[in-house]
Amino acid sequence: MGTTANDLDAMTGTPDAATLARRYRDVRARTEALCDGLSSEDCVVQSMPDASPAKWHLGHTTWFFETFVLAAAVSDHVAFDPSFAVLFNSYYNAVGEQHPRPRRGMLTRPPLDRVRDYRRRTDDLVLGLLEGERLAEPDRAIVELGLHHEQQHQELLLMDLKHLFWCNPLAPAYRETGPAGGRATRLEWVRFDAGVHRIGHGGDGFSFDNERPRHRAFVEAFELASRVVTCGEWLEFLEDGGYERPELWLADGWAVAREAAWRAPAYWRRSDDGWTVFTLGGPREVHPDEPVCHVSHYEADAFARWAGARLPTEFEWETAAAELPVRGNLAADGALHPLVPRPGDGLRQMFGDVWEWTASAYLPYPGYRPAAGALGEYNGKFMANQIVLRGGSFATPSGHLRPTYRNFYYPRQRWMFSGVRLARDV
Amino acid sequence: MGTTANDLDAMTGTPDAATLARRYRDVRARTEALCDGLSSEDCVVQSMPDASPAKWHLGHTTWFFETFVLAAAVSDHVAFDPSFAVLFNSYYNAVGEQHPRPRRGMLTRPPLDRVRDYRRRTDDLVLGLLEGERLAEPDRAIVELGLHHEQQHQELLLMDLKHLFWCNPLAPAYRETGPAGGRATRLEWVRFDAGVHRIGHGGDGFSFDNERPRHRAFVEAFELASRVVTCGEWLEFLEDGGYERPELWLADGWAVAREAAWRAPAYWRRSDDGWTVFTLGGPREVHPDEPVCHVSHYEADAFARWAGARLPTEFEWETAAAELPVRGNLAADGALHPLVPRPGDGLRQMFGDVWEWTASAYLPYPGYRPAAGALGEYNGKFMANQIVLRGGSFATPSGHLRPTYRNFYYPRQRWMFSGVRLARDV
Amino acid sequence: MGTTANDLDAMTGTPDAATLARRYRDVRARTEALCDGLSSEDCVVQSMPDASPAKWHLGHTTWFFETFVLAAAVSDHVAFDPSFAVLFNSYYNAVGEQHPRPRRGMLTRPPLDRVRDYRRRTDDLVLGLLEGERLAEPDRAIVELGLHHEQQHQELLLMDLKHLFWCNPLAPAYRETGPAGGRATRLEWVRFDAGVHRIGHGGDGFSFDNERPRHRAFVEAFELASRVVTCGEWLEFLEDGGYERPELWLADGWAVAREAAWRAPAYWRRSDDGWTVFTLGGPREVHPDEPVCHVSHYEADAFARWAGARLPTEFEWETAAAELPVRGNLAADGALHPLVPRPGDGLRQMFGDVWEWTASAYLPYPGYRPAAGALGEYNGKFMANQIVLRGGSFATPSGHLRPTYRNFYYPRQRWMFSGVRLARDV
Amino acid sequence: MGTTANDLDAMTGTPDAATLARRYRDVRARTEALCDGLSSEDCVVQSMPDASPAKWHLGHTTWFFETFVLAAAVSDHVAFDPSFAVLFNSYYNAVGEQHPRPRRGMLTRPPLDRVRDYRRRTDDLVLGLLEGERLAEPDRAIVELGLHHEQQHQELLLMDLKHLFWCNPLAPAYRETGPAGGRATRLEWVRFDAGVHRIGHGGDGFSFDNERPRHRAFVEAFELASRVVTCGEWLEFLEDGGYERPELWLADGWAVAREAAWRAPAYWRRSDDGWTVFTLGGPREVHPDEPVCHVSHYEADAFARWAGARLPTEFEWETAAAELPVRGNLAADGALHPLVPRPGDGLRQMFGDVWEWTASAYLPYPGYRPAAGALGEYNGKFMANQIVLRGGSFATPSGHLRPTYRNFYYPRQRWMFSGVRLARDV
Repeated sequence: MGTTANDLDAMTGTPDAATLARRYRDVRARTEALCDGLSSEDCVVQSMPDASPAKWHLGHTTWFFETFVLAAAVSDHVAFDPSFAVLFNSYYNAVGEQHPRPRRGMLTRPPLDRVRDYRRRTDDLVLGLLEGERLAEPDRAIVELGLHHEQQHQELLLMDLKHLFWCNPLAPAYRETGPAGGRATRLEWVRFDAGVHRIGHGGDGFSFDNERPRHRAFVEAFELASRVVTCGEWLEFLEDGGYERPELWLADGWAVAREAAWRAPAYWRRSDDGWTVFTLGGPREVHPDEPVCHVSHYEADAFARWAGARLPTEFEWETAAAELPVRGNLAADGALHPLVPRPGDGLRQMFGDVWEWTASAYLPYPGYRPAAGALGEYNGKFMANQIVLRGGSFATPSGHLRPTYRNFYYPRQRWMFSGVRLARDV
Repeated sequence: MGTTANDLDAMTGTPDAATLARRYRDVRARTEALCDGLSSEDCVVQSMPDASPAKWHLGHTTWFFETFVLAAAVSDHVAFDPSFAVLFNSYYNAVGEQHPRPRRGMLTRPPLDRVRDYRRRTDDLVLGLLEGERLAEPDRAIVELGLHHEQQHQELLLMDLKHLFWCNPLAPAYRETGPAGGRATRLEWVRFDAGVHRIGHGGDGFSFDNERPRHRAFVEAFELASRVVTCGEWLEFLEDGGYERPELWLADGWAVAREAAWRAPAYWRRSDDGWTVFTLGGPREVHPDEPVCHVSHYEADAFARWAGARLPTEFEWETAAAELPVRGNLAADGALHPLVPRPGDGLRQMFGDVWEWTASAYLPYPGYRPAAGALGEYNGKFMANQIVLRGGSFATPSGHLRPTYRNFYYPRQRWMFSGVRLARDV
Repeated sequence: MGTTANDLDAMTGTPDAATLARRYRDVRARTEALCDGLSSEDCVVQSMPDASPAKWHLGHTTWFFETFVLAAAVSDHVAFDPSFAVLFNSYYNAVGEQHPRPRRGMLTRPPLDRVRDYRRRTDDLVLGLLEGERLAEPDRAIVELGLHHEQQHQELLLMDLKHLFWCNPLAPAYRETGPAGGRATRLEWVRFDAGVHRIGHGGDGFSFDNERPRHRAFVEAFELASRVVTCGEWLEFLEDGGYERPELWLADGWAVAREAAWRAPAYWRRSDDGWTVFTLGGPREVHPDEPVCHVSHYEADAFARWAGARLPTEFEWETAAAELPVRGNLAADGALHPLVPRPGDGLRQMFGDVWEWTASAYLPYPGYRPAAGALGEYNGKFMANQIVLRGGSFATPSGHLRPTYRNFYYPRQRWMFSGVRLARDV
Repeated sequence: MGTTANDLDAMTGTPDAATLARRYRDVRARTEALCDGLSSEDCVVQSMPDASPAKWHLGHTTWFFETFVLAAAVSDHVAFDPSFAVLFNSYYNAVGEQHPRPRRGMLTRPPLDRVRDYRRRTDDLVLGLLEGERLAEPDRAIVELGLHHEQQHQELLLMDLKHLFWCNPLAPAYRETGPAGGRATRLEWVRFDAGVHRIGHGGDGFSFDNERPRHRAFVEAFELASRVVTCGEWLEFLEDGGYERPELWLADGWAVAREAAWRAPAYWRRSDDGWTVFTLGGPREVHPDEPVCHVSHYEADAFARWAGARLPTEFEWETAAAELPVRGNLAADGALHPLVPRPGDGLRQMFGDVWEWTASAYLPYPGYRPAAGALGEYNGKFMANQIVLRGGSFATPSGHLRPTYRNFYYPRQRWMFSGVRLARDV
């Protein structure tokens, strides 16, 4: 573990203990706040193998701190409950066995209250270490990693709850959300010249190992759309037979779309009066000016081909985003849904609203080395068959994003908050 | 509905309203008592498509009374919640759509408390009708059917909870159970002569339509074992390679056993110290003198072949049981597990302890006519691919059983409380 | 093997060697004649796991004689090719491993010509034994069994070829067949009284072990339809929504019908001009007076319910057929398709045309004992989940049938020549 | 079609008609020669959905010329057989329906001889056009494409036959092959400096659309192994627990390896005396100095991680190969198996022996545009979920390869002739 910590430390500039303690309180409290208003029943059920119960998210993020901080830094640490080592381990083979992912919904015990106790006791211990200045620099880096990890699970928690409520014919709302409104601006194209660019995270501050090392990439000239694709544009695609024309689709995408009988984005349903969309605020009419959300990579790719464009590579996206401020419709705004972009010039919505599918496979950067030890399993072993998404969504905590941030999903998945920004050759 | 009720009525002798009201209170209270000590989390999760959440059982049994009694008998009945018509309909196509069985575990809403309200309100209305003598004879017959239906779900509830807790690595206990104890008596053979027998239910008193009509069947001479097969006998089978010798198995059974990697009854696990069994009281050592439980028809059949015997037909079983008192280790005893038989002569354990697999396919009796209307779907449409079991288990409510009672499961299923009684030709 | 033979012997009265030799020549030649006009390509391909290539049928039926006659009776018998012991063993665990059934179509080697050599050499040896009177009575019984076995494969061969050609968009014809013609007689009901009947094979002459022992069964009074169901009657069912009304179906049947999207019998296809049926003579219009063929048990059962009738039990069928001559549209007639029944009184088409689904599960008769040794695997281990069919089809060799003959298939299967005769309660 | 041809034409410099006619004769004859010694049975069977029967390869490659050359260039062309338009269309939606890929093995008709007639007649017509100088430049480009297409199928034909024979317990040999021999040279590392490189095909001469356009890519400094990985090195990996250590594997690869129970490369089998490998010459001992073959991308990646190295990107590979002569153990050598490399300095075996897995996802190059019309389906729609392989194998026709050639397969596939060359960071 020491090596891992050293390793992480060398690459970042970890905040001091007091800053870290403050952030720890904030992030941990935010996770709990996301569960306000949920019943223990809402928190225990798993709606599909890809999703996890809210209770499991609460336990797993705590397990991360207990396993990688407390057990590593405190020689006589006593586990809150030895069985949690297996129950709440997600996929870290190096620290032992895991309760199988598709069976996370079987855990009616431990009860939710006991997982909350687990959180409290772990928080006391971690904060004790931080506030007592008893945590050396390498372990502080792991606390910081744990907070970013927990922020990822905050977004997952919303994805998973939305899916759970969608599976319920009662179509319950998670929270009240504002009405849809506004008019989308005209889509414009922003041009970028060819050249060798620096890609990836190189400076101070936190980043995941998959953003490193910073390296050179040649990017040919390209143009990027000024905003993301709207529901209205998607309806045109749909009405133009977008889901029935194989020539628009990648062969694998076409096979999936046929098998799954896709006719529209996930969470859309056709009623007598037109299309409705299920949101975290319950079902409502599809608003044509809002960003389209919950589309797979295959759909995004087919849409782009239909539109005479293509998806941007992650290098193009990062080139365009490198100098932009990380602002937008993020979790702190509480919109809980993508919004119609505000008027303005240049690139809009690069951060927040919806994750933007790129054309890039999720692969290691040249010179990539996963962290040593168990934390090396965090990212590296997933570098196969997945596609990079960039820019965050309305559910992404603000402090969590960076222009170099690489999210990744399988091209057929649709339950994350994924949308489309077009690119084209010059 | 009238027809249905007339139909039912003609075949039974329905108790008077006061008797029915008393039984209604008892049965409904017993269902709730089974949930004492369970958390709402325990009640919402579905552990496999065959099983249902406890909350769903609570709702569905209530839906039965609301749909087939209140809505049928009260012209201005207002539904407690119109959505429940779909959520809690199990498989009655004639009364509308059903929430899909494998997705019963998605229903974190309505919350458990609301389902309890649903029970209370329905109970008030049904009891009001009964106690006000406002329920005509045909509808009273449906109340009685509803109570037997609810008693079936009481046993299902225990089966499903046991499976859920088994899926949890913490292996929680449902209730405290007594220690295993006693010595099984020697297995003896009881002989029955050939002849034409009357099979099925013909007299007064309640019976399901699948027990009717009473008809004649020729039964050749046979012998029946005096008690059910014990765990010790099963261990001999197992140690003699019972699970590795295809010549002992039906071809379909062998295929299932290979695919599912069966090595022992369900809920058995091999530890360093021998075999343990998971019970409603948690895991404990296998007790050799206890009845074996949770075996499939395929295993029961293979065991019988290994033992130089066979399974009894349901006609043989009924012939033997016809005149016996319906007594044994049933739900009211609270053992929550099959018990070592008490010493004694003749047939033991014919009722209670474990359901006994027969050699008979679950098929209609000659002249069988399902009830008219929706209640005709209760039994008849399942008369394919299933096998009859007889005699009830430790989880069967006592007032619920009869010698003519036909239970039925697929030959590969093992989560019910199923055991084996041997038979042989003379 | 000796035991087996003794066993078989005791139950039959095996023909003398000369008779047997003559029948051997006939049956073996008939198998080869069925392959006339087929290319080696036609003979090697397997169209689905249930079906086998013609070449495999040619080899397997020969393997049966080599394994159970030559290797058993001739102490120094040298195998034609040791690899054939595995390649052509269907499912007899007691004589060794089997090439997996779903991979029978992988065997481009041995070439068809070599399998023909295998037949010739085996025929020479078996006939040598028979004609030299060097085969003792027990082994002669196995020769007879082998001939009946081969006759079963003659029908399978036609079923499998039909399916193969159906899978080919060119829709090739196996043989030229005559035109459909004639008018079906009115369906009448023939009544049978209640009573104890003798069921099963008891006399001299060959029978399979599953027809034995002859035993008593009580059969309530019933009526049987005078002929089988026609395509025209099936079209009425179909046009009355037969495939869209769950109340007509067994629950398992409905699930299969939905999943497989059944809309008509197998081999039917709707064209602009109505329904066509694929026959061994190629595609042609559905003829309304012909017997319907290639329906599953589930469809047969749903049809019967729609018609206000039911399927007969196998005991009812045998009671009705017991004294009838075994005559009808059988393989020797060469029609290769079910025919419109000739006018006449009483039960028609009890033998030939189409196998008739019964309501009976395929289960052992009281006192059933499979033959000892490997041949005990012939029938007994399949007594689970299957349904009895009676009466033979246009593809059944005439000498092969008896009133006690029990054929069996899974209720969802449709590639055999299966049809429907109705029954009803009195 | 005209557009397509123009398009292709613009990018290549098509050979004159006489040259093309000569190459046409050569390539077409080579395909037939590959089938020498095969029976019509060998040519009709499909061993798995990924593979096609030899007869289908013979028909499909001919269909390509008939569809894209004859039907396009000859206004009154009469199809040889209209049904072939569907039977032999692989995946070109733009020219109509396709017989489903997994059912190519059902086509016992048309017989092999008729497909050979189809080839002869098509050859006569195409050669007539070429030799009569009646084929304009754009259509000549399609003839050239058709020849490269046919060469790809020559390699597929060997892959598919090998798999078919492997599925046969008789383990037949396709052809006699020479003995394995020689000693592998020591693995050395060859260094390449960082810089912007030109990648893709830009000059004259044929290339597929996926190799275009030639574009710039920045490649960081790297080292490449002087030869491919040997069976001996793979045995070390295997004996060091390579197939049992999840930390060596990508998560998706580990899941596949567990599910498929991989313990060694495809076609390896452990016997009492060690490992044997099934080759086109039949089974023989694994030779430690030969290149390892038939490994998936997942295995290649795990091996590289175990070896402290990684797979090269396709840009690295092309950078290294750009100036090398296209020489090696290719199809013309007739070895039918990868060979021990000859001694020598620098990079060995870059062409021939085994296809080399890269670390690169198969994605479009910047500015990629598929050909217009149906031929645009040739490559572009497969740019998802696949991995690039480079360098050709012992089964690749020599004239068919280029340094810019991109082959592609799914990371779990193993039936192609795929091996591993290591790379590492500097």
